[in-house]
Amino acid sequence: MAEDIIKIYNQLIERSKQIAVINSCAAVLEWDEQTYMPRPAATYRAEQSAFLAGLSHEKATDPAIGERLSALEASPLIDDPVSDTAVNIREIRREYDRETKIPKELVEALSRERTLSQNAWIEARSNSDFPAFEPHLDTLVGLQREIADCLGYEKEPYDALLDNYEPGMTAETVKQIFDAFKDDLVNLVAAIGNSPRKPDTSILQRAYDIERQKVFGQAAAAAIGYDFSAGRLDITEHPFTTGLGPNDVRITTRYDARQFGQALFGTLHEAGHGIYDQNLADGHYGTPRGESVSLGIHESQSRMWENLVGRSRPFWKHFYPRAKQVFPDVLNDVAFEDFYLAINDVRPSFIRVEADEVTYNLHILLRFELELAFMRGDLAVKDIPGAWNENFQKYFGIPVPDDANGCLQDVHWSFGLMGYFPTYTLGNLYAAQFYAQAKAQIRNLEDQFAVGNFSGLKEWLVTNIHSHGKRYHAEDLVKTVTGQPLSHEPAMGYLREKFGELYGL
Amino acid sequence: MAEDIIKIYNQLIERSKQIAVINSCAAVLEWDEQTYMPRPAATYRAEQSAFLAGLSHEKATDPAIGERLSALEASPLIDDPVSDTAVNIREIRREYDRETKIPKELVEALSRERTLSQNAWIEARSNSDFPAFEPHLDTLVGLQREIADCLGYEKEPYDALLDNYEPGMTAETVKQIFDAFKDDLVNLVAAIGNSPRKPDTSILQRAYDIERQKVFGQAAAAAIGYDFSAGRLDITEHPFTTGLGPNDVRITTRYDARQFGQALFGTLHEAGHGIYDQNLADGHYGTPRGESVSLGIHESQSRMWENLVGRSRPFWKHFYPRAKQVFPDVLNDVAFEDFYLAINDVRPSFIRVEADEVTYNLHILLRFELELAFMRGDLAVKDIPGAWNENFQKYFGIPVPDDANGCLQDVHWSFGLMGYFPTYTLGNLYAAQFYAQAKAQIRNLEDQFAVGNFSGLKEWLVTNIHSHGKRYHAEDLVKTVTGQPLSHEPAMGYLREKFGELYGL
Repeated sequence: MAEDIIKIYNQLIERSKQIAVINSCAAVLEWDEQTYMPRPAATYRAEQSAFLAGLSHEKATDPAIGERLSALEASPLIDDPVSDTAVNIREIRREYDRETKIPKELVEALSRERTLSQNAWIEARSNSDFPAFEPHLDTLVGLQREIADCLGYEKEPYDALLDNYEPGMTAETVKQIFDAFKDDLVNLVAAIGNSPRKPDTSILQRAYDIERQKVFGQAAAAAIGYDFSAGRLDITEHPFTTGLGPNDVRITTRYDARQFGQALFGTLHEAGHGIYDQNLADGHYGTPRGESVSLGIHESQSRMWENLVGRSRPFWKHFYPRAKQVFPDVLNDVAFEDFYLAINDVRPSFIRVEADEVTYNLHILLRFELELAFMRGDLAVKDIPGAWNENFQKYFGIPVPDDANGCLQDVHWSFGLMGYFPTYTLGNLYAAQFYAQAKAQIRNLEDQFAVGNFSGLKEWLVTNIHSHGKRYHAEDLVKTVTGQPLSHEPAMGYLREKFGELYGL
Repeated sequence: MAEDIIKIYNQLIERSKQIAVINSCAAVLEWDEQTYMPRPAATYRAEQSAFLAGLSHEKATDPAIGERLSALEASPLIDDPVSDTAVNIREIRREYDRETKIPKELVEALSRERTLSQNAWIEARSNSDFPAFEPHLDTLVGLQREIADCLGYEKEPYDALLDNYEPGMTAETVKQIFDAFKDDLVNLVAAIGNSPRKPDTSILQRAYDIERQKVFGQAAAAAIGYDFSAGRLDITEHPFTTGLGPNDVRITTRYDARQFGQALFGTLHEAGHGIYDQNLADGHYGTPRGESVSLGIHESQSRMWENLVGRSRPFWKHFYPRAKQVFPDVLNDVAFEDFYLAINDVRPSFIRVEADEVTYNLHILLRFELELAFMRGDLAVKDIPGAWNENFQKYFGIPVPDDANGCLQDVHWSFGLMGYFPTYTLGNLYAAQFYAQAKAQIRNLEDQFAVGNFSGLKEWLVTNIHSHGKRYHAEDLVKTVTGQPLSHEPAMGYLREKFGELYGL
């Protein structure tokens, strides 16, 4: 191969790593802002972050990158599409196109409208007043359509937006899978509702000392494989995971003495994200080959550890005796089965972020259908509340009391994040499909959990998913790892088996 | 005034503020590194910091700055030398000259040698083996002479180095003041040594619960005026104060259950630095007009609160009853006078950073004399240990056991920080001179301390020192505030009065 092609490739990689340095500095500032920064410093912190974002954008849109990419795309470096070089060239192209195709004026208009829209949304939600938010949402939908036009798409604008979060995924594929999932889910939720077994969730609302919750949550996160020597767990209002550089992936949670599940399952969720980031390929930091696949695949990791593992019978076979030791006064009169049923309470509720493992997906399906319709122009923004409430009644069997508990509850649309919601349920679907495969390949997987050994699953995830970085897009990764295209069936099978047994269906 | 001059000035200021944004991002990363960063992340953190340092240097050496400065230096904006515009132009010139006069090769050579020298010093100190460090120190002295030549000086190379930390100060002035100070100090130390009163310092080495130390230290820092709503106190191995932006000045300390004084006086010291930074002129952040004068003036603020206030009788009149409440078991049998004497124990010792208020200055004087001599070439680097030990015996009356307890104890020279040491004692001298003036101007100042009111002194410092930023160089500031040039007399007077009374001299 010509030496100059290698040189060009190295220049491309060097620039990619430099952008990663800038973005990682921004990540440190953002982590600090959420954890320890004094509140009055927020104004200047915004200036610092804006400077770094501007610098990163400037570096990422340098025409030299486009020229290098064109040369490399005509070179043998892309011959093997899953080689490190081809993966990096393909993904840097994706990123470069996204950064350069949208005109500056549009980016600025979006940024301005986001700020206005955020404030309007906060106000509108607190007054349950959709009409006050409507003009902003209308503007944002228009801007997102313009952005989709700039980015280009084959079938519909939504694809261009979805592609930002779930590269390669299309509305058509999502719709097909979600539609099949929906009928089964609605039936399962109805069946659980009709079951005479009703969990006593007050068990989880007793007084769980926060210092003890911290100890217990940290032990659980460490047990499933989150590496505290290259990370840390802090407290923030909204839990998150952030990578600040190699050997520095931090997670956060929040504690409520009267909600045992919140911090613990939140910690397992973020630890799942953290384990993914901690096990991306060594030495590829700052290049796509060392980055996570997509939001959906990331979410598959957090959901797997939170739900498929963390709310499972074998997990608690190991941890329940320990929980009783840590919270002796609180749990001494609680039988294992009652505790296990309480942490797996399923019932229709209005707020997505508080929903259980089963109904959660219905919240997402509803949002996906609506945003697909309003991005197509089939649903006017003013008609969102009506459509929301009608579908909600249909899926959950209960009427929405007001828009604050309905279409105004989520922050996403006020940020212009259309196309983001599906990644949550895609995460659940990927998780179930990966997990079924892991169970088939690892002997006695759940028996290992029951004795506190989670390394079998963790290593399987590292080998099959984490270590590949962005080598495969999500759909191909699923096929490569499980031998099957993505389907709702593993998730539905998992939910039917687990909750059928629990609720005696 | 011509509009274009205003425009040029605004461009200069905008650039200055942009550089401040970059440096403040670096400060966030540095703070994080010292407080919460997982250790294995250090390698990448060095890359992040190097990137920001490089970017800052690039912006600071842009020839456009030099052109703007030349235009502004011929404009009416410098007519009033203490106007905001003149101060900013003067100080940005200083900074620009320092950044541009030293050739890149010399900066890189220094940086390389520092790394080598650091490692050699750590090794040499632990083996008390000066010859192992000598060639590195020799190289660093040579490099610092070259740097001094690049920067230029009137009388001697040392001036160019000192000027970096204490703008406008010269070796001649320092020498004159330190020489006068020295004889008086040596006599006072000897007199205290001959006094029959011997503090019982074991009082301070009882078991002081660390959580209680935290509460007590925070309360003391808040009482003297450190604003916790725009700052925070964390734990680090080496205590420091850092400004991360407006409304964000953070301090750190360290706790030892068996050393009551370490955390408390350390906290007061850093809070003194913090109060200065928190009260720099609003709205001038990122320009010299909104920055501190010099290391010496900064040190005057920390030393004043730590020593002149924090180790004073009136301070403890207020705080000692509170200390007894916080540490009842530890202090119930300790009389006020015994406690007060213990925190003001004076005795010759080998290690500077552990020295008391009186002997501390002798440690500095000794270092200043040596570095002045070796920078002049009057003292060969190989002869430093001999000269150190000889002078130490003369000033302290005790022989140095080995170089680890002598000329190898400090990190400064291994970093090439020649000219830095004098700022510590200059800080003490400024502090005493300012304090004497404050006492003369504020009625019943120390009576206010005795009832826990420190706002009189704090406001006086804000008005007379903090709010001026870099308006005056240190020597002019002292004259402006106290009506007198800097002298050792206020410090000597303060020490004689305080310790004369304490030790019955």
